[in-house]
Amino acid sequence: MSAIILSIGDELILGQTLDTNSAWISQQLAAVGCPVLAHLTVADDQRAIERIIGGAIHQCSWLIISGGLGPTVDDLTRQALAAALHQPLELNQEWLDELDRFFKQRNRPMPQANRIQAMIPRTSRMLFNTCGTAAGIEATFGPDNGLAVHPCRVFAMPGVPKEMKAMFTCDILPAIADAGGGAVILSRTLHTFGAGESRIAEMLGPLMDRARNPSVGTTVSGGQVSLRINARFPSRAEAQQRLDQTADACQQALGHLIFGCDDQTLQQVTLELLARSSPDATLTVAESCTGGLLGKLITDTPGSSAYFHQGWITYSNQAKNRLLDVPQSLLNQHGAVSEPVAMAMAQCARLRANATHALSITGIAGPDGGTPAKPVGMVCIALAHPHGCQTYTFHFAGDREMVRDRSAKTALYLLRYHLLNQPLPQ
Amino acid sequence: MSAIILSIGDELILGQTLDTNSAWISQQLAAVGCPVLAHLTVADDQRAIERIIGGAIHQCSWLIISGGLGPTVDDLTRQALAAALHQPLELNQEWLDELDRFFKQRNRPMPQANRIQAMIPRTSRMLFNTCGTAAGIEATFGPDNGLAVHPCRVFAMPGVPKEMKAMFTCDILPAIADAGGGAVILSRTLHTFGAGESRIAEMLGPLMDRARNPSVGTTVSGGQVSLRINARFPSRAEAQQRLDQTADACQQALGHLIFGCDDQTLQQVTLELLARSSPDATLTVAESCTGGLLGKLITDTPGSSAYFHQGWITYSNQAKNRLLDVPQSLLNQHGAVSEPVAMAMAQCARLRANATHALSITGIAGPDGGTPAKPVGMVCIALAHPHGCQTYTFHFAGDREMVRDRSAKTALYLLRYHLLNQPLPQ
Repeated sequence: MSAIILSIGDELILGQTLDTNSAWISQQLAAVGCPVLAHLTVADDQRAIERIIGGAIHQCSWLIISGGLGPTVDDLTRQALAAALHQPLELNQEWLDELDRFFKQRNRPMPQANRIQAMIPRTSRMLFNTCGTAAGIEATFGPDNGLAVHPCRVFAMPGVPKEMKAMFTCDILPAIADAGGGAVILSRTLHTFGAGESRIAEMLGPLMDRARNPSVGTTVSGGQVSLRINARFPSRAEAQQRLDQTADACQQALGHLIFGCDDQTLQQVTLELLARSSPDATLTVAESCTGGLLGKLITDTPGSSAYFHQGWITYSNQAKNRLLDVPQSLLNQHGAVSEPVAMAMAQCARLRANATHALSITGIAGPDGGTPAKPVGMVCIALAHPHGCQTYTFHFAGDREMVRDRSAKTALYLLRYHLLNQPLPQ
Repeated sequence: MSAIILSIGDELILGQTLDTNSAWISQQLAAVGCPVLAHLTVADDQRAIERIIGGAIHQCSWLIISGGLGPTVDDLTRQALAAALHQPLELNQEWLDELDRFFKQRNRPMPQANRIQAMIPRTSRMLFNTCGTAAGIEATFGPDNGLAVHPCRVFAMPGVPKEMKAMFTCDILPAIADAGGGAVILSRTLHTFGAGESRIAEMLGPLMDRARNPSVGTTVSGGQVSLRINARFPSRAEAQQRLDQTADACQQALGHLIFGCDDQTLQQVTLELLARSSPDATLTVAESCTGGLLGKLITDTPGSSAYFHQGWITYSNQAKNRLLDVPQSLLNQHGAVSEPVAMAMAQCARLRANATHALSITGIAGPDGGTPAKPVGMVCIALAHPHGCQTYTFHFAGDREMVRDRSAKTALYLLRYHLLNQPLPQ
């Protein structure tokens, strides 16, 4: 059992749109243990589509197509599939009725162009589209119709990700899973913040061996190093058990550097810790170079209003002085990007907001404004809490966006370690 | 002349990484008029790579490969290419010397594993990697070596986007452009904010006809509808002229809805307008549901400190009252999400910051907190300026992230139309 994924569209072949469908379908197939042999992409060109379908059906047992089922003249997947099947296109009355209903509900006449979306090759099966006007198509090539030696089931879906995902999940994946009986692949992603990819790899050691099953791989995004664990075993129960074991081993190796898994974010996990630390815990922010980004991250989480009531964006020196009482003498003596100024910002914000915790950030995001003593990327962060105030200086690499992003996330990371009552990793 | 793009990697076939290389390479090839026949992706599997190379070389004149040139045992592109060429791998002394230098500069011994990166098939040519350890490989299949009827030049590059892009731009694209003489495709992207995709399409009318050259297509991202114009003509001069004409026609049709092109952002364009409006123009913000996002957007632009000095994140009612003097009676009477409260926030922020312009946002980002009278997605925005204060109420669709994103961008859009002294589009 194996699959080939075929994406169809001029916008893909011209590089104007990223193909996200193939990656998503691959993930779904991996989860039911169906190996993927290849991703293929061609333009909205009937001959090219015919040719690539004609080749693929001899190599796999499932050919999963998306794109080219729209109502316009450049949508040619159904014609190409009909030609490959040596069958004419026929009207599917059931889908035409659906289309009629669809447009009636919206009080619009059905454009003549949409009628083609109810046409499917004779001998093929119509697949319901629960959120759009393009019906999907299922066809079989094989010994029964003399079109292939081994049977290959072909599914053609619309290219709109939402419609494709609904159709794939409902009508296609169950069929593949049923036919499977092969290995099950289960995955989990663990997220870390605070150490680079090579340091993480060093700490994981043999857990990252290529031949290991479950395998552990790292990916980096926005300063966050994530571990992807894939467990491939004959049964779901075994895959689950071995996945859990490997996740535990990663946790042992990395300790608190791992802040969460799968959909969890650093901000969400940190806010949960804050909430658990005390029933009346609250957080405020005083931001200079991040200009509101830290507040934005904190309020990404629904319900953050329980812990976060206000914050200050003090971008200029005058604003630091006027809004947060940072003494002009301190600004003169140490400069705005300094630990004493960061401390004054955090302490005043904490008092003024009547919050238990305050984070402040002041730094040089660039591209201009750096000096030899205070280069671009230098950022001071302070954390004021009921028992005192810690300050830190960092030198972040990268452009303005990266420096600002790392600054805000590092502030959350500092708060998280403080709430965990743990020393920062070396 | 035509090309096939082949990406190699387990992480691609498993759907764990999006293939961004193929889209980028496609864009580059389009710009020199080289049609792309297909994107292909296979896993790090030597036989699969051999087989797909063996098929592709008979269909195109350029085969552009990325991935599988790393130092580890799962990197098999060079072995597969050697097998397809029926040639052994040989050490390339020039690249081995480069590798030695690379590691000496970093005061690290060269790991034995990296030596493989200096191995290339006999009869092939080494391509310099200006930012990594994997050398690229160029080989030719054709009548000269009896491996194909028509010549096909194959380039294998590392998969790391930065290394791939440097190598492609320096060593590969010029060769393809030289061999070309075909059509030139020039592109431009115009960005709009403030109208939906179907409204934009309606206003563009026949400009969006599929058969038109230059073609105009729309894409939507983050509430911003962008027009992609592609002009395909025999000469660069003609393509440029016709591209300009079509861009002008789009501008005529959409007017101020178009805020910029290519890399320009709404925040950048709006800040430039503000700066031009008066030498001492400044902007401040008072944010509730966006929690700092508007400040973050404004300070995305380097040099924003000239126009933006401070802002307030007033997430709770108490903070609105304490930091921005919003009367408790106003909050009681109208609720925090109301035009009177938005107006009070903007006016106080403007005075307190001594700014010429102030934007305030208060709304219900969801998922909770909505009522029948004030549903999730309802957002009030106020703009205070030297001549008064306007307030607006919007109902944004989508999840928390979308509501917050649209709120902050809509605030900038309102300021932009105000600075242009234009009425908002109907």
